[in-house]
Amino acid sequence: MHLFYADELNPQQALLGKEESHHATRVLRLAPGEEVLVTQGKGVIYKGVITQLSKTEARLDITGTFSEEKRQKYLHIAIGPTKSLDRFEFFLEKATEMGVDEITPLLSFHSERKVYKTDRGRKIIQAAAKQSLSNWLPQLNEPVNFNTILDSTSPQRCIAHCDASRKREDLLTSVSSYPNCLVLIGPEGDFSREEIEAAAAKGFAEVHLGTRRLRTETAGIAVVMAGKLY
Amino acid sequence: MHLFYADELNPQQALLGKEESHHATRVLRLAPGEEVLVTQGKGVIYKGVITQLSKTEARLDITGTFSEEKRQKYLHIAIGPTKSLDRFEFFLEKATEMGVDEITPLLSFHSERKVYKTDRGRKIIQAAAKQSLSNWLPQLNEPVNFNTILDSTSPQRCIAHCDASRKREDLLTSVSSYPNCLVLIGPEGDFSREEIEAAAAKGFAEVHLGTRRLRTETAGIAVVMAGKLY
Repeated sequence: MHLFYADELNPQQALLGKEESHHATRVLRLAPGEEVLVTQGKGVIYKGVITQLSKTEARLDITGTFSEEKRQKYLHIAIGPTKSLDRFEFFLEKATEMGVDEITPLLSFHSERKVYKTDRGRKIIQAAAKQSLSNWLPQLNEPVNFNTILDSTSPQRCIAHCDASRKREDLLTSVSSYPNCLVLIGPEGDFSREEIEAAAAKGFAEVHLGTRRLRTETAGIAVVMAGKLY
Repeated sequence: MHLFYADELNPQQALLGKEESHHATRVLRLAPGEEVLVTQGKGVIYKGVITQLSKTEARLDITGTFSEEKRQKYLHIAIGPTKSLDRFEFFLEKATEMGVDEITPLLSFHSERKVYKTDRGRKIIQAAAKQSLSNWLPQLNEPVNFNTILDSTSPQRCIAHCDASRKREDLLTSVSSYPNCLVLIGPEGDFSREEIEAAAAKGFAEVHLGTRRLRTETAGIAVVMAGKLY
């Protein structure tokens, strides 16, 4: 069954906006009377029947609950957008499939890419959440500067970096035990020494991701997988 | 330092072939006297100094060992090539970064793609292994049919599928404890019921990858990560 994101949703009815209605009519060629799934990405997926359908709007009667998921753990990844958009957006897709909660594009000293249009990212995230029948839609924030993220109030805050001369914990074996965690992942050139020291001074734990040299997007995928798949 | 794959390598000298020599001269603009890393992807990375260099051939004197890794675990993934080449090749790259040992494109009843040119894949794998300074170069086999892979003699053999009506073990929590394992991952439409039954009859363990509906390439990445990163 196909999953749609509703603009408005209550336990009786749902309203789909323009993009989802277009997808239902023009791509999937659905008709009134057909059963679909509908969610707002906040934990519950409902079953519904299409009652009205046009290119710009669709209405559904809710017939029951398909699935419900309570969040056990909250994982926020702040990650340098890679030079290649494809690589960054592949990260967005995979992180969504695996259940990340929040993503922030992080601009730092060695960033190869200084802007990211989050409209593009939100479409990718929504498509991935639909495809994987996820109850939760991750939040994609606007890009922020490195110094701004240091003021985050997450209970558990980590900075992943490649400087083996500094003492670091192994994040991949510990992240699944953190109920609410923010992880900073650097761009292609890693974080600068000054950035690592600034984060440490603000109380961030310094961490590594094992012995392999992982690309930025691979590091992000590894952290989400370790934190969410178990 | 840059890592090159040698056509010929002994503890004193190494010879680079045409592609690697071209990369050294034309892309990286290296010159005789410069120090590089060289391997054959069989566990040892050596340090070497370029002694002769042309567009088609390069010779190195080996000066020492950079790193050496013994294989603790062997992981072979046989996976349906996805309809989108990009997705399949992203899997090849990520699996290589994370240390997979062997990959077989697996053709089955629901395969969307019936051919895969392994020359392309080997280039991607070599580039990913170089980028991640991996001591080991994964082996990419020619595509095989489903029935052929069932005759594999791997000590631990698993088939991952999405049929929740059948009893399945959770592979992601167990794969890291298997010293030598083959995992079958289906194409977009999953394995057919007949294929699952045939594998079970041959002694394959039926497994799942958690509660999420993962795309083919994401399932492959998840297994390699769970098996190799810890």
